[in-house]
Amino acid sequence: MIETHTIAETRAALRPVRREGKRVGLVPTMGALHEGHLSLIRAARQAGDYTVVSIFVNPTQFGPLEDLAEYPRPIEQDREHCRRLGVELVFHPGVQEMYPREGVVLVHPTKISEGLCGAFRPGHFDGVATVVAKLFNIVKPDAAYFGQKDAQQAVVIRRMAEDLDFPVEIVVCPTVREPDGLAMSSRNKYLSPEQRRQATCLRRALKKAEEMIHAGRIESEVIIGAMRELILAAEPAELDRPGIDYLEVVDPDSLAPVHEVTAPVLIALAVHIGPARLIDNIVVQPVT
Amino acid sequence: MIETHTIAETRAALRPVRREGKRVGLVPTMGALHEGHLSLIRAARQAGDYTVVSIFVNPTQFGPLEDLAEYPRPIEQDREHCRRLGVELVFHPGVQEMYPREGVVLVHPTKISEGLCGAFRPGHFDGVATVVAKLFNIVKPDAAYFGQKDAQQAVVIRRMAEDLDFPVEIVVCPTVREPDGLAMSSRNKYLSPEQRRQATCLRRALKKAEEMIHAGRIESEVIIGAMRELILAAEPAELDRPGIDYLEVVDPDSLAPVHEVTAPVLIALAVHIGPARLIDNIVVQPVT
Repeated sequence: MIETHTIAETRAALRPVRREGKRVGLVPTMGALHEGHLSLIRAARQAGDYTVVSIFVNPTQFGPLEDLAEYPRPIEQDREHCRRLGVELVFHPGVQEMYPREGVVLVHPTKISEGLCGAFRPGHFDGVATVVAKLFNIVKPDAAYFGQKDAQQAVVIRRMAEDLDFPVEIVVCPTVREPDGLAMSSRNKYLSPEQRRQATCLRRALKKAEEMIHAGRIESEVIIGAMRELILAAEPAELDRPGIDYLEVVDPDSLAPVHEVTAPVLIALAVHIGPARLIDNIVVQPVT
Repeated sequence: MIETHTIAETRAALRPVRREGKRVGLVPTMGALHEGHLSLIRAARQAGDYTVVSIFVNPTQFGPLEDLAEYPRPIEQDREHCRRLGVELVFHPGVQEMYPREGVVLVHPTKISEGLCGAFRPGHFDGVATVVAKLFNIVKPDAAYFGQKDAQQAVVIRRMAEDLDFPVEIVVCPTVREPDGLAMSSRNKYLSPEQRRQATCLRRALKKAEEMIHAGRIESEVIIGAMRELILAAEPAELDRPGIDYLEVVDPDSLAPVHEVTAPVLIALAVHIGPARLIDNIVVQPVT
């Protein structure tokens, strides 16, 4: 396994790979790799000939009050995961290498970044889209792998590739969950044991919504109301009540709100549990 | 010479070229090729092995009140120019091919698009940067050629390539001028013979500014005042007075206004002469 820290080294390492006609897969990460990331790496390994994992905690996608400083950076463990899974190249640049001076040209998702997390994290998706565009231009992968857990990010990247004609196949892999249903996230580390139990309410709310739709309910307002109730009642009662950023039923492609569930919908939520802001989502097909 | 109309055909045509290790140069144009464009094509031919000219009147860089419908489209002449100069591939897509649905992810230049033309043409540089990013991703050139006449565009594209790590060398070629100094532009066709004479005031104002700086003047306000006077006095007097969009002295890299000329500056202007909005600029080094 090679590890590179500069753009020039990375390009140089990939030149012979490309010359041999190998299919390059990229898994962009912020490190702190968990089973969700590992599933992306396995998918890249299976579909391609050469797998690149980038590990970069991208400052431009954090808001000024967010957890940039606290974000976990267990680089030695991350390396070990990559080595064990047969990754060929880890690109682990510093902030100065990626942003040698203030960027004045951004990739800017419009409409699709206005709702959901975009409404609560201004500039977040500019940061995400811009750094992924940079990684695409540095690595020039044939395919890139993202998790469905970050549903809005997946839509933003898919539309970026489409609208800007990046010659990259965007592969979105299913959310990987803990046995009790909690979606894997590097931010789960922030939870105390009680908060960890409380956090299962995200998945339970999504399953409740799915059940309601499968039972024939179509009014988003009613479904959202039931999810809210379930989350606010999440025990143990002595803890802070979860703070809900949003609970939304949207179109899976445009992310526009849907008022009646008559076609597949994305149901997405963001909830603060103790110090962690957690997100999760589900795609539900209505019964016909 | 090959002519392609779709992205897929263009990629297919370029695949063997890249496999042979040829150096690909791209000259992005809106057609109506004049000597300025031809100088870019010659530069690309000289530095590379395979020259691509794109001809696409990009609707997203025109404002709602601008000249999209009137913009000249002499495609047969353009083809003939390209053939004569030894261009290998002309990419001439339709609007539907480039924008099959409304784009929701843009390339967005921030600060550097706020002044100069950006202040008068809202959204123009989003349109320019986005279509050039698309062309870079479709053609994957080693180098791309732009004219210094569109000075702000050149800065935007240079910073886009830098900030987004496009692996493309950006080459900016000198402005090509008519014998009387008027910068070549597809929009010069809009001028009557009288307006054509009047239009020489743009270049005369820039030369005046240069003379003043070489004579030791450093106050931008004084230099701009002299340019304004010269332009407003441009004969013939019976014509409409030229309408000045801007006369600015700015830093050539950041495009931030400069109040005292103590380092190289970009002096740029945009003036309406009859039906045409004309731009021109000069880079001036102060005497030391």
